[in-house]
Amino acid sequence: MVVRIEADYLMETSIDPERAALVLAGEQSSGTFVAVPGETSELKERSGARLEKLDVLGSIAGPSLPGAKSGSCVVQAKITLSWPLQNTGPDLPNLMATIAGNLFELQEVSGLRLLDFRLPEAFAKAYPGPQFGVDGTRQLAGVAKGPMIGTIIKPSVGLNPSETAALAATLAKAGIDFIKDDELQANGPSCPFEERVRAVMTVLDEHSQRTGKKVMYAFNLTGEIDDMRARHDLVRDLGGTCVMVSVNSVGLGGMLALARHTELPIHAHRNGWGYLSRHPALGWSYPAWSKLWRLAGADHMHVNGLNNKFSEDNDSVIAAAKSCLEPMFDSKACAVMPVFSSGQTVLQPWETYERLGTADLIYTAGGGIMAHPQGPATGVKALREAWDAAIAGVPADDYAATHPALASALNWYRS
Amino acid sequence: MVVRIEADYLMETSIDPERAALVLAGEQSSGTFVAVPGETSELKERSGARLEKLDVLGSIAGPSLPGAKSGSCVVQAKITLSWPLQNTGPDLPNLMATIAGNLFELQEVSGLRLLDFRLPEAFAKAYPGPQFGVDGTRQLAGVAKGPMIGTIIKPSVGLNPSETAALAATLAKAGIDFIKDDELQANGPSCPFEERVRAVMTVLDEHSQRTGKKVMYAFNLTGEIDDMRARHDLVRDLGGTCVMVSVNSVGLGGMLALARHTELPIHAHRNGWGYLSRHPALGWSYPAWSKLWRLAGADHMHVNGLNNKFSEDNDSVIAAAKSCLEPMFDSKACAVMPVFSSGQTVLQPWETYERLGTADLIYTAGGGIMAHPQGPATGVKALREAWDAAIAGVPADDYAATHPALASALNWYRS
Repeated sequence: MVVRIEADYLMETSIDPERAALVLAGEQSSGTFVAVPGETSELKERSGARLEKLDVLGSIAGPSLPGAKSGSCVVQAKITLSWPLQNTGPDLPNLMATIAGNLFELQEVSGLRLLDFRLPEAFAKAYPGPQFGVDGTRQLAGVAKGPMIGTIIKPSVGLNPSETAALAATLAKAGIDFIKDDELQANGPSCPFEERVRAVMTVLDEHSQRTGKKVMYAFNLTGEIDDMRARHDLVRDLGGTCVMVSVNSVGLGGMLALARHTELPIHAHRNGWGYLSRHPALGWSYPAWSKLWRLAGADHMHVNGLNNKFSEDNDSVIAAAKSCLEPMFDSKACAVMPVFSSGQTVLQPWETYERLGTADLIYTAGGGIMAHPQGPATGVKALREAWDAAIAGVPADDYAATHPALASALNWYRS
Repeated sequence: MVVRIEADYLMETSIDPERAALVLAGEQSSGTFVAVPGETSELKERSGARLEKLDVLGSIAGPSLPGAKSGSCVVQAKITLSWPLQNTGPDLPNLMATIAGNLFELQEVSGLRLLDFRLPEAFAKAYPGPQFGVDGTRQLAGVAKGPMIGTIIKPSVGLNPSETAALAATLAKAGIDFIKDDELQANGPSCPFEERVRAVMTVLDEHSQRTGKKVMYAFNLTGEIDDMRARHDLVRDLGGTCVMVSVNSVGLGGMLALARHTELPIHAHRNGWGYLSRHPALGWSYPAWSKLWRLAGADHMHVNGLNNKFSEDNDSVIAAAKSCLEPMFDSKACAVMPVFSSGQTVLQPWETYERLGTADLIYTAGGGIMAHPQGPATGVKALREAWDAAIAGVPADDYAATHPALASALNWYRS
């Protein structure tokens, strides 16, 4: 394990890359633009950030971002900086100001992206991490193995509580494992949180009593902290098994307050991720960003899906999903369940499983279930069959020969 | 005032711009990729986002961001979308998921930036806004008019509490109005929050008893919510007059919990702003982003400074500062004090005042005070003189003829 805080960046610069990296290190620790009294060599030795590694990757045509110092040639480099733990202590909000603070706008760089970071064990002791993760989620949902097949309440916003519950009943009857609110629906006046939870839990309880299967429903409780805690308590008291939060909306302050309170898995929604990540030379890579929320207490994290309807490519999706399951500390893995979504149908499970190597995930489909020509029950069945085929290593078309739900789904979603 | 939630975006697309805008509107309200049962025309009418305005600005050479649908020509357009208030109610965290959620990564756009938004009056009632703002801050700091001259404790991190207090004493003696912790220093083991506040308040109290002037010190209390509340209470109990928070580190959840608790002005630090904004076709513009924090309760907000050491240009700095003072609602202006910083010296006040038209601001300098050849007291004096000249409309060099502190500072910082 590391004893200092370490962060890796993709950096782009037109000045000497070592000099640029040292400016970043200085700016984010004891340095200033102008040397000031008190900035002694002892202090720098004690508190200064260090450049641990510098790999120049090559030159590129021109600067990706405006406002940088110009030079004869723009190079990309991968750098690793490190900080002594005592600069911040094991403190997640203040870690952000250190590794992702005032450095993306420095003139010394025309691009900077935080790729990953590693933390000393003290952070593992200081923060909850996922309290349910993969195993706890499987247990609560009654899904011992294979993917959890899920869906999202759609239309995204506009259904009232009883319409939401009616749809939840249909989906439960279809055999779904997991349902989530849309991130646009938390506590809107047309669909207040409490009424929605009561209506949905009534139908899910009925379904559970009839079938023995308690569908996991992630209720979107995003809001202020006292509200989130009260909403959590309501869900728990009514026998619900999951809560959802838009992490960029509540921030680490909101997430930590919820995580230290929760008795249910936290489904972390990443909406807004695009503004943090879409330019490849700026912002956050998913493995870095997700570590904040994993350590703070997320149990499920969204990773998009293969051949999705957004701009993210498949390599990025797979790297994100893999990172969710990679241990953060020796003492605390902080493994979270990756949540696949966006245009997912029976067409993607094969490649998803082949590239990811595990079915420890939540696989959500909307049209991929509801639009199945034989209805949602056959839609859910077809998705399970697609995953069964992938896990068994049998091509979907071969498997479909003896599995008509999958066969008709393959025909339908290819057309 | 608006009755619907309205948001303006700079959009870049290779498909028909109206179609792209309608996809954004659908994705962020009742639409889905595939039409689903229940998505009735009544529901769309009630809950759907509307395209209010579309101005095509012209075509550009190629897409700014990867992953977009390609087409024969990339155009930029300014669009305004609107949502009915009842989709979210007056709810700031869930507003974020609506106006800045899953839309930056849509394939229909190769660039999307949230320029501004306007909210119905219900939001003004639901949120605290700045409780001190310009007037309350001036009153607490004892600075009736003109800029508040401030500085930042440097080195950024590494000083212990007594070293910090010694520096604060020097700065107080130099006649400063305002001091802030660096954002890298909150509660690190080498400089614990409580010890630092006690040490600093001791020297500031001594100074106040001697001179009658209580220097405003923004103590960086960034952390988890209970910690922030306790730290706030400590500062208040010891007679401190300001707290500081890194807003991107604590998020709206943290900020709102602090704002609903605070009895002191909140100095909002924007570190991390670069990853939200540096690409001109992606993310957030400052007038939009800062409105979240203004309504949530910030009293001071960082806006960088003219000819700064970062990548931001002067037009952007001035637009940001102006936006801080523009009213958000008829019933609640939410005006916050803009905080200038980064490489500021006697050289920038003239243009800053000329372009901004007000001295309702905090003007912080580090080297611009400490590096003055006659020491920090002359440094502070020179900055005040530079502002006096600007406000009087007298060129700095003319004013310097009878003001030796300014004269030597102009010489020094020009060299």
